[in-house]
Amino acid sequence: MQRKIYLTMHSREEARQIFLSRFQDYRLATETIPSRQARGRVTAEPVHARFSAPSFHAAAMDGLAVRAEDTFGTSDEIPRTLSIAQGQAVMINTGYPLPADKNAVIMIENVLLSEDGTVGTIRAPVYPWQHVRKVGEDIVATELLFATGHRFRPADIGALLTGGCAEVRVQKRPRVAILPTGSELVRLEDVAEAIPAGKTIESNAEVLAGLVEQAGGEAEICALISDDFEIITSHVQAMAASDADMVVINAGSSSGSADYTVRIIEELGEVLVHGVTIMPGKPTILGVIGNKPVVGIPGYPVSAIIAMEQLVLPLLAQMQQIHPQPPVTIQAVLAKDMPSRAGIEEFRRMIVGRIGGEFVAVPLKQGAGAITTLTRANGILRIDAASEGEKQGQARGIELLIPLPEVERTILCTGSHDLCLDLLNDFLRKQRPAFPLASTHVGSLGGIMALKQGMCHLAGSHLLDPRDGTYNISFVRKYLADKDIRIITLVHRQQGFIVPRGNPRGIATIHDLFAENIRFINRQAGSGTRVLLDYELERHGLDGDAINGYGQDEYTHMAVAVAVLSGKVDVGLGIQSAARALELDFVPLVEERYDLLIPGALIDTPMIQQVLRVINQEDFQQAVELLGGYSTRETGRLVDPT
Amino acid sequence: MQRKIYLTMHSREEARQIFLSRFQDYRLATETIPSRQARGRVTAEPVHARFSAPSFHAAAMDGLAVRAEDTFGTSDEIPRTLSIAQGQAVMINTGYPLPADKNAVIMIENVLLSEDGTVGTIRAPVYPWQHVRKVGEDIVATELLFATGHRFRPADIGALLTGGCAEVRVQKRPRVAILPTGSELVRLEDVAEAIPAGKTIESNAEVLAGLVEQAGGEAEICALISDDFEIITSHVQAMAASDADMVVINAGSSSGSADYTVRIIEELGEVLVHGVTIMPGKPTILGVIGNKPVVGIPGYPVSAIIAMEQLVLPLLAQMQQIHPQPPVTIQAVLAKDMPSRAGIEEFRRMIVGRIGGEFVAVPLKQGAGAITTLTRANGILRIDAASEGEKQGQARGIELLIPLPEVERTILCTGSHDLCLDLLNDFLRKQRPAFPLASTHVGSLGGIMALKQGMCHLAGSHLLDPRDGTYNISFVRKYLADKDIRIITLVHRQQGFIVPRGNPRGIATIHDLFAENIRFINRQAGSGTRVLLDYELERHGLDGDAINGYGQDEYTHMAVAVAVLSGKVDVGLGIQSAARALELDFVPLVEERYDLLIPGALIDTPMIQQVLRVINQEDFQQAVELLGGYSTRETGRLVDPT
Repeated sequence: MQRKIYLTMHSREEARQIFLSRFQDYRLATETIPSRQARGRVTAEPVHARFSAPSFHAAAMDGLAVRAEDTFGTSDEIPRTLSIAQGQAVMINTGYPLPADKNAVIMIENVLLSEDGTVGTIRAPVYPWQHVRKVGEDIVATELLFATGHRFRPADIGALLTGGCAEVRVQKRPRVAILPTGSELVRLEDVAEAIPAGKTIESNAEVLAGLVEQAGGEAEICALISDDFEIITSHVQAMAASDADMVVINAGSSSGSADYTVRIIEELGEVLVHGVTIMPGKPTILGVIGNKPVVGIPGYPVSAIIAMEQLVLPLLAQMQQIHPQPPVTIQAVLAKDMPSRAGIEEFRRMIVGRIGGEFVAVPLKQGAGAITTLTRANGILRIDAASEGEKQGQARGIELLIPLPEVERTILCTGSHDLCLDLLNDFLRKQRPAFPLASTHVGSLGGIMALKQGMCHLAGSHLLDPRDGTYNISFVRKYLADKDIRIITLVHRQQGFIVPRGNPRGIATIHDLFAENIRFINRQAGSGTRVLLDYELERHGLDGDAINGYGQDEYTHMAVAVAVLSGKVDVGLGIQSAARALELDFVPLVEERYDLLIPGALIDTPMIQQVLRVINQEDFQQAVELLGGYSTRETGRLVDPT
Repeated sequence: MQRKIYLTMHSREEARQIFLSRFQDYRLATETIPSRQARGRVTAEPVHARFSAPSFHAAAMDGLAVRAEDTFGTSDEIPRTLSIAQGQAVMINTGYPLPADKNAVIMIENVLLSEDGTVGTIRAPVYPWQHVRKVGEDIVATELLFATGHRFRPADIGALLTGGCAEVRVQKRPRVAILPTGSELVRLEDVAEAIPAGKTIESNAEVLAGLVEQAGGEAEICALISDDFEIITSHVQAMAASDADMVVINAGSSSGSADYTVRIIEELGEVLVHGVTIMPGKPTILGVIGNKPVVGIPGYPVSAIIAMEQLVLPLLAQMQQIHPQPPVTIQAVLAKDMPSRAGIEEFRRMIVGRIGGEFVAVPLKQGAGAITTLTRANGILRIDAASEGEKQGQARGIELLIPLPEVERTILCTGSHDLCLDLLNDFLRKQRPAFPLASTHVGSLGGIMALKQGMCHLAGSHLLDPRDGTYNISFVRKYLADKDIRIITLVHRQQGFIVPRGNPRGIATIHDLFAENIRFINRQAGSGTRVLLDYELERHGLDGDAINGYGQDEYTHMAVAVAVLSGKVDVGLGIQSAARALELDFVPLVEERYDLLIPGALIDTPMIQQVLRVINQEDFQQAVELLGGYSTRETGRLVDPT
């Protein structure tokens, strides 16, 4: 096994500068295109007008075209009548040519026309060329309309047409060849019912292509290439010799036994950078073959995107002479501690919303393999390489991934996980006005803590008080005593055992969890489901520690269901809808109440009012019942805390 | 002549709200498209995952797949050897499936492999599922990937593919039918050598289409329609009944005799708004036919764009449930007084640049007919309806039309006009780094005043001191005594008489300006050319006031040349290149020096250094000489002020 170590890691800024300066003088090819298609394109040479605009002296107002000299001396006291019939004055509309013997226009509002329209009476003079757009007032034939390097906006197309330029010479868009490599990859289009064993659907190429196109380039995605040094080499060689302006190899950019990219670039050209102190995105390669930039982008989807955005798109911008608008950054209070490794610049995916007058940012999971951490995020927190992390409650700059007005509409929901929240989100987004609901899952108690710290708009909770069998009330009293919190029921739902289809181990009661060879998966401490389990165990005088797997936990109902589906465990406790989603069997144990906890101070905000409106809608409640295992008999009811 | 008055003018905000609320519930049609083409599109229904990701327990690192239990108890002191040959440990690459009997991965960096690769020695334990991406860790089959109303970003396409969604149901893009009306219009493609007399090239339709496309819509431009009530009516009726989501009629939105739009909408539907208190853009019509929005957009190009952006694009956004990022706004000091009519909200086109630590905004001309005021602008100043104008030196918010980093690179050039400045701009933009040169023309003395107030980076000047025949030095001493100003020669150039081709009036000397029936056009007071003329008149003991046209002036050499070309005058004083550009004849009168005046404090900035570098370049100087009438014999020379 041949191994290479990253000999010199570079910081993002160093790596970027090395790459940009190497291709400082790279010039794109040029082409001539119709002006009507030139929006967004960049001039490759100066553009001069062929025609003047206006090309004649034109009326700038509706009115009477006159000789200004014929109006001199008029006033309210000394009106004058001009003959239209005899051509002393001529009716004219805006934009039409001024008769050759006229040099001004009197606005129609200032003319008294005779009944038959043959004469007009005026009561004030005009000066020569008043209300006339003179030849060339806008554009003079031969003048420079656009210099080299101008990016056409919509208005510019109007100037091109007006100036008589039917075609323009522009830079070609930079063309990027994307080579997806990996023997484990399969195209979605080649997958029928299920993903073949051990295969992974290729998805990065299309994402990278989208980033390229968004940056003004054109992407060409090549066919999948298996992990074979010779085959990859020949493809890279071919693309570097093609008319592509850049070659992107994904993945194989690390230093594993099947990571050939760095060796291939070394053999065919030069590796400028291998390894960048960013996370995700560390195993990135920036290189050159011939005069072409060739890059190796890591395989994990989030790594691929961060590496592309931070290190490769800047070169695409430089090639096009674009200086992009920097992302909009807002100051937001961090909802959690976020430890970070010193020496590495971290890009953390965040959900941001505005609570009262303040933005709050909730971190999502860190895994570079989880594309959903990016699709769910609406902001990015950069944690500086010098930092060992950020503290909850600090305000930090967050780079927004969506427009600010959409961030401001985002409802931050946390606490316990329930599938009805996804349904609620979907319904909320269909309303006018729409407010997207962004959920993070930290368990019921975690939600209560977030409410305590003012880090969410609402929290889902199903915390059973073992002493009296009530839900949520006593916990709100205990932890949120100083807050005005409204408890509003979302649903009643079945909790029970999620088991493989057909229930092969015959799980029926809580006692069966203790049977020999039964592997169980637990929920995390602080989750309502965990509290429920412990309550049931205690009620039956049982000791959880005797259950095989009691000490291993998952954070969501779906994760528990997946553990059962994959055969990792035989049983877990969860909600029926999770079992149903994965076509597993479900053994009901108990019905519980799941409430939304909402600060009183937010109740009258449009977003919370919209939430309350939706959960009281019949169509929403019908959709909930269709999920299975739910009752909406008290949905929308304010729980009396007394 | 049937006339309608705007009965009720609305403010921009009122008009927008009337329009938006009328179409609050307008729903776009939907369609199913391949996920690979879904970037930028908006979900029409919730999207659920078909597959989990990972779909198997996958190695998250390159290394050895093991049973975690086999590693317990190891340490530096107590290493353990695992047999690869016998399958106790298995070499595995990132992303590959974990063998069924393994539950963890040891990073390859922590394994000592035997020479023959049959055994690996480890010195630390791993816990179960360490360095393993478990089934469904990213996506669980059936889970909600995207709710209704989600706009796909590049990363989202990765999630769609990974989740097994080859197609998605999305909103159709809103389709906008654009009807260009006006008997005076002609398509550029139908113009051969010259624009037919009285005709105007149609250009608004393509501009409006570009705005629609930029806003996420699809535009269909209909064929040109002449100003005929019946014909326009039948077209509007047809488009309102088509599958278009909106109909835009351009122009005829005012109240002139050929302005039919308001009557047509009234007859076929309802006029919601006619007349908005904005300038440009006042004669805008917002209406409805059937359930479709139908708008009348004014004909002047700047009016058309402002009306479209301010009143129509917000509805396109609402239809798509987009809340666009507001424009980036910066505070900039106004370079001039800007009077404004109270009761009208004005949109003034500005050129913005950064001088030292401060942004400076220079207003461009106001004319709604001049598309070049928008193509040259990089920012917009809104002057509130309540305001009677803004004062020079005040800081005001400017909405940027281009990215901030490009504004920061903009060189503000003012003073006297010379065609070499266009050439300089073009050369500057071809350099790396590129700095665009944005010129406004206020005459040499105006440029000196701008320097005095710190409102430009440099100014062009050719002010002759009649006492000693020197250029610029005495004026800099007089007006900029307290400033460190460098005078650097750009060119020497010929000034002379611009006359029609063949010089039909036989103009040869300054005395000929006094001949009978000779019509002259002057340059504005404060311009170097005016000073030169007055100097020559005095030198010959002549009285300018006796010249026919001495009191009428233009602001640029090109405007003078146009006046000659159009036959409005017989002669003007100007530079040879202006005559040459319009194929006029030129009678040399005198050679003068044209300098760049540059504050010493800015000399060492990268932008000014780039200017100095370019004017000393041979290729630039060659291009200048090719213009005709120029000498570069002292170009780039620092004029000694002593």
